[in-house]
Amino acid sequence: MAIHVASDTQSVDGLVQALRILPGVGIKSAARMAYHLLQHDREGAQRLAASLQAAVRNVRHCESCNTFTEQPICQTCADPGRDRSRLCVVETPSDQAVMERTGAYDGLYYVLLGRLSPLDSVGIADLGLTRLLERATDGVTEEVIIATSFTAEGEATAHILTQSLQKRGVKVTRLARGVPVGGELEYIDLGTIAHALADRR
Amino acid sequence: MAIHVASDTQSVDGLVQALRILPGVGIKSAARMAYHLLQHDREGAQRLAASLQAAVRNVRHCESCNTFTEQPICQTCADPGRDRSRLCVVETPSDQAVMERTGAYDGLYYVLLGRLSPLDSVGIADLGLTRLLERATDGVTEEVIIATSFTAEGEATAHILTQSLQKRGVKVTRLARGVPVGGELEYIDLGTIAHALADRR
Repeated sequence: MAIHVASDTQSVDGLVQALRILPGVGIKSAARMAYHLLQHDREGAQRLAASLQAAVRNVRHCESCNTFTEQPICQTCADPGRDRSRLCVVETPSDQAVMERTGAYDGLYYVLLGRLSPLDSVGIADLGLTRLLERATDGVTEEVIIATSFTAEGEATAHILTQSLQKRGVKVTRLARGVPVGGELEYIDLGTIAHALADRR
Repeated sequence: MAIHVASDTQSVDGLVQALRILPGVGIKSAARMAYHLLQHDREGAQRLAASLQAAVRNVRHCESCNTFTEQPICQTCADPGRDRSRLCVVETPSDQAVMERTGAYDGLYYVLLGRLSPLDSVGIADLGLTRLLERATDGVTEEVIIATSFTAEGEATAHILTQSLQKRGVKVTRLARGVPVGGELEYIDLGTIAHALADRR
């Protein structure tokens, strides 16, 4: 469905199309956003444009852990206070940020920037496994904590990583599966309850 | 709730904050959008920035009807094929675009750019009523169709407009209230059914 307002508003149409690249934004939300910005917040629109450009220009991947940073090495990797014997493997910079916000981890990270996804033809080679294996066997790392998602693809990724790492004698652990904080058993899926039961402590 | 990733990613934080100006986008969606753009679609992010700037730079209000256009007078107002005896009053450029997409109207428009909203202190003076009254009594206009929303504020606006216009001898009509196309009576609110019954034809 194309929203065609009138041919002399191609800037509006262009903005609507450009907004659709945002995840979760369809044609109707995009049109709503475009009209809102133009009618009520042109200053905000300009600020957003500047922020997009600044982020694209300044944000790169940490040379050590792959997360987003504006320096060659991210603050976490550069922090001498972090426990260098532990390495937490996550899928994305966003997951790394989530782990960091828990405040429950003071080791280092390795961001895969993806996960095994045969359907999207993301194979083992695309995950930069070699760099991770080198890192895990550098003599400093004592434990690798796999924190990929508990989805089919995340689990497959965890499985491959665990195999490759254990083959090299690295100690590998995985985030616990279980009932979420605040979860009522009645509303939790059975697979999760079964895992929580098996991993009881 | 502030998402603080790490102080060396202020461009990411800035982008998350800037994305929150979009209607319906909270802190979590904004973070998801920012990470998505940086990880998967930097080109799209740059295109979005350019589109925002182009729209803010190029899009202005039609001097005749107030809708969005890139010319002094919008295409609809400039079109000699439109029926100049009818004037449809809508709240926003977005509403004007919706009316136009129905393909059921070939008259002209007047966009209020707002509606009476005492809570937000939008009064009669803010609606540019003078210009609308001049327009409606220019001798060419024979009928004004009020197409404001059927909300409390839209109805109040319609009421005021109708009074002012009728006082000047202008013929005023209002969009019909009734059951939406595809609507099943069972799921329609009673007020709507009552209106549909009263306005039966």
